[in-house]
Amino acid sequence: MNIYAVIMAGGIGSRFWPRSKKRKPKQLLRIFGENTMIQDTVNRLVGLVPRKNIIIITNEVQKERLMEQLPKIAEENILAEPFGKNTAAAIGLASVLINKMDEDAVILTFPADHLIADVEEFQNTLKNAAKFAYQSKGLGTIGITPTHPETGYGYIQFDENSIDEEIYKVITFAEKPNIETAKRFLKTGDFLWNSGMFIWHISAILREIEKHLPDLYKGIKTIEKSIGTEKFPSVLKKVYGQLKSISIDYGVMEKSKDVFLIKGDFGWNDVGSWEAVYQLSEKDTNENAFIGDVYSMESQDNYVFSPQKFTAVIGASNMIIINTKDALLVCNRKNSQDVKSVVEYLKMNNNEKLL
Amino acid sequence: MNIYAVIMAGGIGSRFWPRSKKRKPKQLLRIFGENTMIQDTVNRLVGLVPRKNIIIITNEVQKERLMEQLPKIAEENILAEPFGKNTAAAIGLASVLINKMDEDAVILTFPADHLIADVEEFQNTLKNAAKFAYQSKGLGTIGITPTHPETGYGYIQFDENSIDEEIYKVITFAEKPNIETAKRFLKTGDFLWNSGMFIWHISAILREIEKHLPDLYKGIKTIEKSIGTEKFPSVLKKVYGQLKSISIDYGVMEKSKDVFLIKGDFGWNDVGSWEAVYQLSEKDTNENAFIGDVYSMESQDNYVFSPQKFTAVIGASNMIIINTKDALLVCNRKNSQDVKSVVEYLKMNNNEKLL
Repeated sequence: MNIYAVIMAGGIGSRFWPRSKKRKPKQLLRIFGENTMIQDTVNRLVGLVPRKNIIIITNEVQKERLMEQLPKIAEENILAEPFGKNTAAAIGLASVLINKMDEDAVILTFPADHLIADVEEFQNTLKNAAKFAYQSKGLGTIGITPTHPETGYGYIQFDENSIDEEIYKVITFAEKPNIETAKRFLKTGDFLWNSGMFIWHISAILREIEKHLPDLYKGIKTIEKSIGTEKFPSVLKKVYGQLKSISIDYGVMEKSKDVFLIKGDFGWNDVGSWEAVYQLSEKDTNENAFIGDVYSMESQDNYVFSPQKFTAVIGASNMIIINTKDALLVCNRKNSQDVKSVVEYLKMNNNEKLL
Repeated sequence: MNIYAVIMAGGIGSRFWPRSKKRKPKQLLRIFGENTMIQDTVNRLVGLVPRKNIIIITNEVQKERLMEQLPKIAEENILAEPFGKNTAAAIGLASVLINKMDEDAVILTFPADHLIADVEEFQNTLKNAAKFAYQSKGLGTIGITPTHPETGYGYIQFDENSIDEEIYKVITFAEKPNIETAKRFLKTGDFLWNSGMFIWHISAILREIEKHLPDLYKGIKTIEKSIGTEKFPSVLKKVYGQLKSISIDYGVMEKSKDVFLIKGDFGWNDVGSWEAVYQLSEKDTNENAFIGDVYSMESQDNYVFSPQKFTAVIGASNMIIINTKDALLVCNRKNSQDVKSVVEYLKMNNNEKLL
């Protein structure tokens, strides 16, 4: 069984403004510790997926930085989409690339910017899932046991009767719920968080794309024919622009009749906002997390990132303060999700320098 | 009657960190509008004091910037103390300088960094006070009618029976009170705020210094003898270093038996903290005062100064945010007086760059 990994690294991460920018989004940042998030994502595959089998789908503006940050990944394994077309197109493209090399491949698909605390458990889970995908020629997803009624994630309902060791059948995918629904989901016990991580046999994903997104399938098959020829870049550009922009969840997984689920219990966090970063950071005795030279007085429960400039915080609590070379964010922790509104505002004003 | 003005411009203004620095304290900053505070202080004397009669006492590190900001004031009128020695020494030095030119002078003494809203009323008050000081060869002070029980100012008790048109006799000077005492002062109605602005005949201030600070008097008389000679700089340096460091309030005014008072009703504000700056600033409909390019959302009652860097403020209220080239302050408005603790901290750490 040959395992491949597809890492989707095209996101902008507007909730991490002003640290994340179009050219340097969340996955390219050192949010925790020494490594960037994409480096952590690649490193945790060591021993599970051979390096030459790791494919990264990104865009033109991020490709160079990705190559810098991942010097051991071959350039041909880092593929820039000519246009951002959501995850179905990105996964379709990766699928035909891999199909050309190995028609019996098992593919693991990951976002580039999630945090996983227990790498050993992560690898064990993925090995088990890959084995089942290979044997069943199937399509699978990883469900995370919810710890609270989160409204920022999709949920997956599963049948509690396992079909194999720790493998279950998906009943339905549910979109991001409101708080009442989220609480109900938690109570029932058969709803898990949709982590956006998938496992499939190459034949299964191509079959399901053909079935549920036939135009997109035609497009990626046209691209497949040009792989390895000099026409590839021009064909990719021409065809990719016409592909439907839809997520793999909505376009394929939710419509598919036969999806398996494996529970992920490895300390997963999608690090979706500065609030999540605060929660995951080491704190001092005043529950402050400071990065940089920070003086504080009568201040609790703050996250301050200001590595280049001395900062004094006085009488401030529950604040997120991000001070970069060209912009400053001062945000209440409970408004963490509203940071993307700044990015909308900057777009509206064509403020390219800050985007 | 020849009127002179002495402007004391040696302060550091540590409550205005990080905008104010040793080399560029409050009086050298544009806090409101086009002009710096020292420029406003000088401009409001036009028509009251001839330019050649305006003496500015400062220190070596500020002298050059003062000359830049006040190109119409002659260099010899801007005198740098060799050491900071509090206001009694500064006023003593200015007094002997003026005495050498005009033994019948009336001197108005002002801090360099106060705000006055009604310049016409200010000039009328000072003219009246100068006239009385000249006629009586006396010593006077300006009392500001208090609007609230402020604990940050000294108070002056006066006798309500006027001794001349709008001129009263001082009963006593009171140090900064606690809040209970301040409330009592307000109730009695015969306590006014000590503005730190004085009016005196040259003979009166020299006489009172001689009486209450005889050593300091001897020192300034020694300096006086060297004025106009090439020995002046060396004598100044030698003698000034040995002068007692004491305020004119504590060293002379409080001890003097015969001080007159004139009420000042011209919109005085000593702009003692960022909170005062917020209060005095123009606000938008959310009661925010923003200087620079600021995006805000769910934020009220904030003062933001960030002229060089785009700032986003989300879900923040009652905050003071000062973002300069080399430091950032995020401070609750109610902690406005604690800003000086940052300066103490930086001093303790010998962080000269930020001081």
